[in-house]
Amino acid sequence: MTPDHLSTTLSALADPTRRAILARLAGGQATVTELAAPFAMSMPAVSRHLKVLEHAGLITRGRQAQWRPCRITAEPLKEVADWVAHYQQFWTESLARLDAFLRVQQNKVKKSGQRKYHHKRKS
Amino acid sequence: MTPDHLSTTLSALADPTRRAILARLAGGQATVTELAAPFAMSMPAVSRHLKVLEHAGLITRGRQAQWRPCRITAEPLKEVADWVAHYQQFWTESLARLDAFLRVQQNKVKKSGQRKYHHKRKS
Repeated sequence: MTPDHLSTTLSALADPTRRAILARLAGGQATVTELAAPFAMSMPAVSRHLKVLEHAGLITRGRQAQWRPCRITAEPLKEVADWVAHYQQFWTESLARLDAFLRVQQNKVKKSGQRKYHHKRKS
Repeated sequence: MTPDHLSTTLSALADPTRRAILARLAGGQATVTELAAPFAMSMPAVSRHLKVLEHAGLITRGRQAQWRPCRITAEPLKEVADWVAHYQQFWTESLARLDAFLRVQQNKVKKSGQRKYHHKRKS
């Protein structure tokens, strides 16, 4: 792996068709013909996508000449997960702040409701 | 968010300088000048990278004309983490298989060692 393998992986994943191919392969190995079926796409176009995925190490292909089934390879995806995990504190904090904000709003609404109720009882 | 916001995010992240900028911003907000300092890069080049990050929603910029500090935004990173989490079983399984393989190898080595020992004792 070169130091910037992560960029190659992220670039390969930055395409909805390639992510759809990976999602299909998550269900088990498949041939190019099987992979091409759900897409309105020529076989050469699918082959080009597979080459990008293979270059990034996201898939491996069998060695039998005609029937070269593709398989998903997990390692580059783990590399992405490990990288993004460094930033987890940011969305956890954002959600915690949103949660705190909503609690304060909810309490304000409750107190305002109670005041209105007391006001009505007194008058 | 458009349906393919994830591709925009992954494409923005597929560059080591942009990831380095995000890593710097993880430590706190910074101006373009501060962000440019550690890179051997012109200000317009850094500005272009910031525009890509901003377009993907990975950073936001302050509104003061001269001093427009950049801040990291967590949501698109969470989207990446959520997407990649679907594949976690694959690397967990790979590691489990590797672990099982190593145990078998270790047991073989142990047994082979014991056989050699018994053999020596008998002879």
